[in-house]
Amino acid sequence: MNPTRPLKSRIDASQGRIPCDLVLTNARYFDVFTCAWKTGALSIFDGVIVGVEDPLPAKRSIDLKGAAVVPGFIDAHVHVESSLMTPGEFEKNVVSRGTTAAICDPHEIANVAGTSGIEWFLKCAEQTKLDLRVMLSSCVPASHLETNGAGIITGKHLAPYQSHPKVLGLAEMMNFPGVIHTDDEVMNKLEQFSHQRIDGHSPLLRGQALSSYLVGGASSCHECVFLDEASEKVSKGMSVWIREGSVARDLENLIPLLKMETSTSLGFCTDDRNPLDIREQGHLDYLVREAIRRGTAPELVFRSASWSVARHYSLDKNDIHGNIRMGAIAPGYVANLVVLDDIRSVAIREVFQKGIPASELQFAKLPDPSFSNTVKISALTEADFLAPKGRVHIMDVLPGKILTDRHVGNSDDPGVAQLTVLERYGHFQKPAHAYAKGFGENFKGAMASTVGHDSHNLILVGTNAGDMKVAAEALAKSGGGFCVVQNGAVLAQLALPIGGLMTSQTSAEIHQQLTALKEAAKQIGCELHEPFLQLAFLSLPVIPSLKLTNLGLVDVDAFQLISLTV
Amino acid sequence: MNPTRPLKSRIDASQGRIPCDLVLTNARYFDVFTCAWKTGALSIFDGVIVGVEDPLPAKRSIDLKGAAVVPGFIDAHVHVESSLMTPGEFEKNVVSRGTTAAICDPHEIANVAGTSGIEWFLKCAEQTKLDLRVMLSSCVPASHLETNGAGIITGKHLAPYQSHPKVLGLAEMMNFPGVIHTDDEVMNKLEQFSHQRIDGHSPLLRGQALSSYLVGGASSCHECVFLDEASEKVSKGMSVWIREGSVARDLENLIPLLKMETSTSLGFCTDDRNPLDIREQGHLDYLVREAIRRGTAPELVFRSASWSVARHYSLDKNDIHGNIRMGAIAPGYVANLVVLDDIRSVAIREVFQKGIPASELQFAKLPDPSFSNTVKISALTEADFLAPKGRVHIMDVLPGKILTDRHVGNSDDPGVAQLTVLERYGHFQKPAHAYAKGFGENFKGAMASTVGHDSHNLILVGTNAGDMKVAAEALAKSGGGFCVVQNGAVLAQLALPIGGLMTSQTSAEIHQQLTALKEAAKQIGCELHEPFLQLAFLSLPVIPSLKLTNLGLVDVDAFQLISLTV
Repeated sequence: MNPTRPLKSRIDASQGRIPCDLVLTNARYFDVFTCAWKTGALSIFDGVIVGVEDPLPAKRSIDLKGAAVVPGFIDAHVHVESSLMTPGEFEKNVVSRGTTAAICDPHEIANVAGTSGIEWFLKCAEQTKLDLRVMLSSCVPASHLETNGAGIITGKHLAPYQSHPKVLGLAEMMNFPGVIHTDDEVMNKLEQFSHQRIDGHSPLLRGQALSSYLVGGASSCHECVFLDEASEKVSKGMSVWIREGSVARDLENLIPLLKMETSTSLGFCTDDRNPLDIREQGHLDYLVREAIRRGTAPELVFRSASWSVARHYSLDKNDIHGNIRMGAIAPGYVANLVVLDDIRSVAIREVFQKGIPASELQFAKLPDPSFSNTVKISALTEADFLAPKGRVHIMDVLPGKILTDRHVGNSDDPGVAQLTVLERYGHFQKPAHAYAKGFGENFKGAMASTVGHDSHNLILVGTNAGDMKVAAEALAKSGGGFCVVQNGAVLAQLALPIGGLMTSQTSAEIHQQLTALKEAAKQIGCELHEPFLQLAFLSLPVIPSLKLTNLGLVDVDAFQLISLTV
Repeated sequence: MNPTRPLKSRIDASQGRIPCDLVLTNARYFDVFTCAWKTGALSIFDGVIVGVEDPLPAKRSIDLKGAAVVPGFIDAHVHVESSLMTPGEFEKNVVSRGTTAAICDPHEIANVAGTSGIEWFLKCAEQTKLDLRVMLSSCVPASHLETNGAGIITGKHLAPYQSHPKVLGLAEMMNFPGVIHTDDEVMNKLEQFSHQRIDGHSPLLRGQALSSYLVGGASSCHECVFLDEASEKVSKGMSVWIREGSVARDLENLIPLLKMETSTSLGFCTDDRNPLDIREQGHLDYLVREAIRRGTAPELVFRSASWSVARHYSLDKNDIHGNIRMGAIAPGYVANLVVLDDIRSVAIREVFQKGIPASELQFAKLPDPSFSNTVKISALTEADFLAPKGRVHIMDVLPGKILTDRHVGNSDDPGVAQLTVLERYGHFQKPAHAYAKGFGENFKGAMASTVGHDSHNLILVGTNAGDMKVAAEALAKSGGGFCVVQNGAVLAQLALPIGGLMTSQTSAEIHQQLTALKEAAKQIGCELHEPFLQLAFLSLPVIPSLKLTNLGLVDVDAFQLISLTV
């Protein structure tokens, strides 16, 4: 190859004047453009497909013996931090599962560490084999109803990163009331990013309010819960990303929307997917598999999982940074390929990332994060965990949903546990308290997490002040993480010393500790399948309807703080 | 409206805090995203749709009484010069016919006048109400097998215009052999424009040669003639623009390709459409109508005619120049709308361009062109029109095709006429001669044109040197145009003094003279329905298979000059 003229070299290879790097013969490859299967040899040079018909001369040849090949999956929206892994460990786990590109929003670490968190992600993205693209976090903190570690990130703070080769635009604009009411700083950001992609986030938003939000510039939504909600959003021009995270699981509701006519407006995303699920069920391959299992034509699913997302983010076009088009198997497209032993079960034989088998990828050592020691809480007493009692607002935790219901009841009602959020960035505010139902009728003890969306203060659920104090102290000591406590003893713990969100341990090590945590949670009576992820979302005040931040109880529908007692 | 904060004003209007400019009530509008019809009121502010449900408060309201509304049509590829009108007259004629945006390539005037021709188009595009986007002409001249008025336009010449707000990329890369053989200047242009759109032009190109061409970066083709050719191109990732010009008419062959699965990869274009056809049959509305008349579901046609083209050129996204997204009827999209009295017959009641009724548009006075006096030929004698006789290569002119067939025959065979191309930019080269069959068995006299794609030398067809000399002299005197001559008399003529390509006359005036020209052509025995357009394409050496330029006879398949006599 002529390194100064890669285009010339690719054309030379496509004409057989120089050898290709790899040819995959006897492929049955998926054509996203017509939703049909084609047969041919995929000739690859310099990471790019240069021929799809007869095999071109190549240094290496692999006979696929008729195996199906589909374009690499693109995760349309993911917070890598929710995997608890560093980007380096994350890519090792997902590329082999078919996710060859991902659009990430590093807003978890941004809430903890500000733009230096975003910078770290960008530096990682420059070196990952996984094609990681970054949306710049729009809502740090998610609202004015909480405080985080970073303070407020304004458009001015984001400006230096806007033209970074890995940046595609503005991440999920969660502050939809701010759009509709034309808040100054929201308008600044929407104007600043109007020529790039602006991701939406508008759970349950409908009608004229949704139309106003769209006039603001958002063009995607990964927060649809109901089919008719998603259908309205597609009809109004949004790309809808069908999400199947570890808690928020919308695929069952939304997959009936995937038809030929809507297939280029729909994609898939994991948003927040925990390492257990990635390891046990899969990453985007799991969503693809589930969509097919539920009866959707595989062709529609494969199209949506690749080309449709690529088109939305203009990844199907070469860009000014030298990124080559992706999202399809065709000449001139990046050779991100998933080889399947079986189409319907999405049984993956091999993945090619820019033409290199995943099993042979040389992953780079990524930049070290420097976000340790982020859990700074003052000395605690049991009194810090004594919430007001009586007739109170109570959150109803819904298994598998990040939305909550709500009712008014008594703090001592059966099955009601106490929630507490502690500011953890050294500002030593008073703890905030609330109540939640849904952790289990026999729940007894405490669970705590420094993953507490999106400000990531320390969030605890418990049935007595003593166990809650022990849990908080355990996490303060480990620099963050998850723990389960009963009768004053820590039953299980996972340390997350990177910003209180991630660990540099391997997926296998994380898996082992998380399994123990889930077992311990069950042991103390927690009935939720995802105790920590569900807990973590109870502090996110941009998801209806009742949430608890470090500043107090939030009525999300009214978008204001309310008194706990009624 | 707050002029410094248009976004805020639009959102305010969408929330009814300030009045909209216009609301179209009782609309039955087409949703391109789901291919369904919706009912609602279209509320418009500042040229943008801000609501699609209940009518918002507005200064003006029009009751559509259930009429169908579809997104404005986008002509995916057009040479405005082929209308013989200036851009100002062109827009007056096409917007009212539903063409609200057009992607033009000013390569006709660029061949005559160089970058000053492109500059004039860009200045016009800044002021037209029609949303005119410009692709920068890639192949001026079309090949090395001809000379034009401008000389060679290199990538360096185009660079100053590349970031112009109206520029989308590089226009049709006709030199596909140059791509495949990696000619230096072609590589320069492809690299220079790799991050923008590169329009393709690859008639009949198939298989590995097509793949190599695509690796080069082209991503559309408007030159498909055969269904399986177009199908292969779509499968390889090209957007295929179904062309129905005045000569090249591909709709009948290609329309079966338009299905739900391919609908976002297909669009429509006029390429070269003469003013008679625009006036009598229509512009893009004619293609839409024809596609429906031939049995295609109207929904697929309306989608392809708007959204699909917008997506290809990223016109469905707001851009850095402040252009608002188009191609659909949805909140946040430009209000380019076509109101139909009848869907199947595409009977247009009204067109809205950025929310303004076409009938009320205040068209700007566009910059004057300064491309007069471009026909500079030396004193002629009849000897200049005496071609070699005997056994010769003969072009077979195919009615309604810009491709030619070819055979070897005798120059005196019945129905064979002489072709001559005269360099017309003052370089005083020797005339070039050839023969063509297909103008008519009884054709007698001469026809001449200074529209002679793409170098626009003076091209003539005739049966005797005397009439040909008279025809050439008539055009030299009028600064270019078309004429018909018999027995030494000019029977009809249209002057095209702007670069020998266009006139500043109105569409009605042009219509009257062209009708007379066609009548005169018929009178002297020409059997072609489009005598002048067919003649004009006989000098285009990038369209197979035999063509005549000012340098001589071109074997397009071999891409070289050949001897006339065999």
